[in-house]
Amino acid sequence: MRVLGVDPGLTRCGVGVVEGVAGRPLTMVGVGVVRTPADAELGHRLVAIEQGIEAWLDEHRPEFVAVERVFSQHNVRTVMGTAQASAVAMLCASRRGIPVALHTPSEVKAAVTGSGRADKAQVGAMVTRLLRLDAPPKPADAADALALAICHIWRAPAQNRLQQAVAAHRTLKGRTA
Amino acid sequence: MRVLGVDPGLTRCGVGVVEGVAGRPLTMVGVGVVRTPADAELGHRLVAIEQGIEAWLDEHRPEFVAVERVFSQHNVRTVMGTAQASAVAMLCASRRGIPVALHTPSEVKAAVTGSGRADKAQVGAMVTRLLRLDAPPKPADAADALALAICHIWRAPAQNRLQQAVAAHRTLKGRTA
Repeated sequence: MRVLGVDPGLTRCGVGVVEGVAGRPLTMVGVGVVRTPADAELGHRLVAIEQGIEAWLDEHRPEFVAVERVFSQHNVRTVMGTAQASAVAMLCASRRGIPVALHTPSEVKAAVTGSGRADKAQVGAMVTRLLRLDAPPKPADAADALALAICHIWRAPAQNRLQQAVAAHRTLKGRTA
Repeated sequence: MRVLGVDPGLTRCGVGVVEGVAGRPLTMVGVGVVRTPADAELGHRLVAIEQGIEAWLDEHRPEFVAVERVFSQHNVRTVMGTAQASAVAMLCASRRGIPVALHTPSEVKAAVTGSGRADKAQVGAMVTRLLRLDAPPKPADAADALALAICHIWRAPAQNRLQQAVAAHRTLKGRTA
């Protein structure tokens, strides 16, 4: 199973591709950050994020996209931008018929560290260990994107297969309609 | 000047096209609502909104798109969906090089009724009068979209011309790059 994790953000949108199945060692396929200039107009930033995500989907052809679920309880100043960046990531995936899964930050932390309240350093350390990397991916957004992908591979494999079947059926219907 | 106003929402996204210039009677070119089923997956709802907005852009070729600026102080349960729907509208416009303007709800209310704290009925009544319609557009999201377009035509015409020039320059650069 190949999963693209997306840690959404307007300034730094973390992206990471992980391959593997639950219960076996996982492999990092790629990791990076889609950046947009803070002084650009919002619409242009969203277009840049779309282009960045599209490039990652083209290059890595993931079977699933896992996006961090955004809560409005977070920092009020940044949450709108995070919601908007996540919308673009979901749109890009759904347009291609790739199933999208949302995971909360605490689900992701619990999956990779065992604690839903782990800090960034702990998440980075576990991502490094689980993917057998030489050092934690930088910036933290990139590590978080990998953690999202790992979380998705480990959670509910049965649910993933169902989602994938539904998405394939929908894509087929769209093509023959 | 032809403006598409968008009152963003996942369940009902109001859209309205108004043509005219400040200081002269305005004309409604079209009004409607892009709806998505509340039980559909978020990614698919965003794709449906994209298709709806694209259809309105194709049909009416607006020179500007005016979108309601989303604040996180609003209803916490719906604000994320509103932010995500607004991201899709901005993305569609910016991708075509159409300048996007954001107006706050109180700017829009003040523009069409004279008071930033006007209620929905007042906004609907003024939209009906200003566009010489037989009855207020229903649902309220459709009337709000028209109010956004009117607000945009009336506010800062000089700023509009500047934005348009910048957008045209960017599109040109994109084509020759």
